[in-house]
Amino acid sequence: MSTHNLYMALIHFPVMNRKGMPIGSALTTIDMHDIARASKTFGVKGFYVVTPFADQADLANQVIDHWIKGVGGELNPSRKEALELIRVTATFEEAVQRIQNKEKQTVVTVATSAKYLEGAIPITTLKEKLASNAPHVLVFGTAWGMAEELIDTCDLKLEPIKGSGNYNHLSVRSAASIYLDRITNG
Amino acid sequence: MSTHNLYMALIHFPVMNRKGMPIGSALTTIDMHDIARASKTFGVKGFYVVTPFADQADLANQVIDHWIKGVGGELNPSRKEALELIRVTATFEEAVQRIQNKEKQTVVTVATSAKYLEGAIPITTLKEKLASNAPHVLVFGTAWGMAEELIDTCDLKLEPIKGSGNYNHLSVRSAASIYLDRITNG
Repeated sequence: MSTHNLYMALIHFPVMNRKGMPIGSALTTIDMHDIARASKTFGVKGFYVVTPFADQADLANQVIDHWIKGVGGELNPSRKEALELIRVTATFEEAVQRIQNKEKQTVVTVATSAKYLEGAIPITTLKEKLASNAPHVLVFGTAWGMAEELIDTCDLKLEPIKGSGNYNHLSVRSAASIYLDRITNG
Repeated sequence: MSTHNLYMALIHFPVMNRKGMPIGSALTTIDMHDIARASKTFGVKGFYVVTPFADQADLANQVIDHWIKGVGGELNPSRKEALELIRVTATFEEAVQRIQNKEKQTVVTVATSAKYLEGAIPITTLKEKLASNAPHVLVFGTAWGMAEELIDTCDLKLEPIKGSGNYNHLSVRSAASIYLDRITNG
């Protein structure tokens, strides 16, 4: 059902705290649900939850198992369909490698941010690139966003979502949903 | 900063369970945060959290107070700005009445749903109506959506958010964010 070759990644390390210092963040299980559901809605091929912390990866896998193999999926098959998109990796590099192994080609990494990043491209440009069917992964930071060292490794930066004023504090769940809608529609 | 006269309402009763039976749902505090943040981003004038259950209303008000008057707002002023948009009411009628008292005119009620509702209008039509500056309230159901009896009282029904396939199980947080983006942008 995919109309584009798009993946998602949610980063828990390295991200920033409120003071802009690099940290690791705790898993928020509702991020997994909301972004998986939006991914399923908009034809995303895979959603990578990235955390180097073994206990957090275990928690993520327990949530996934509950909904895919456990009683959750029996009660709510549509949630099962969404969470089946999730893969847990220790690093972003591992997520990229796994996508490349599957796609047998280089994946283009696309950083997102609530702030304008130097050289950021508009959504329309990303849509043009996706039209070639080249695999892209859209990368989101938890906490106060991806650490600069990770943003710098990305091939592309995407313009922030602009509202009607200067307020730019959407949840990562909202931002991911809006980006997917903008990229795949209109 | 508002470019339109738009309000939001999140309904906890009457909504539907998975079998389509009318129920009351429990408050999910992250709904308050995410929808308030999206509301602030897209210039919404007020966000009504509707629950007839006194303990749930207390919880909602405690969350709001923590972020507006408590230590939360000191640590995170942007969250304070968002949660200041929230008002808690026992019924949807009370929310409508409060908006009308403030606006000194009739508010147009707009039901949303993950399913196509008979006579639903496209976003473009709603945008045209909002251009007149008439107050509108966009209404969202928790659980499996607003009960039919409530949908039937609404002046307008809005088309569902369509993805790239038939999957229509976005979280209410994602759906509210995407609707606001579509209504206020593009």
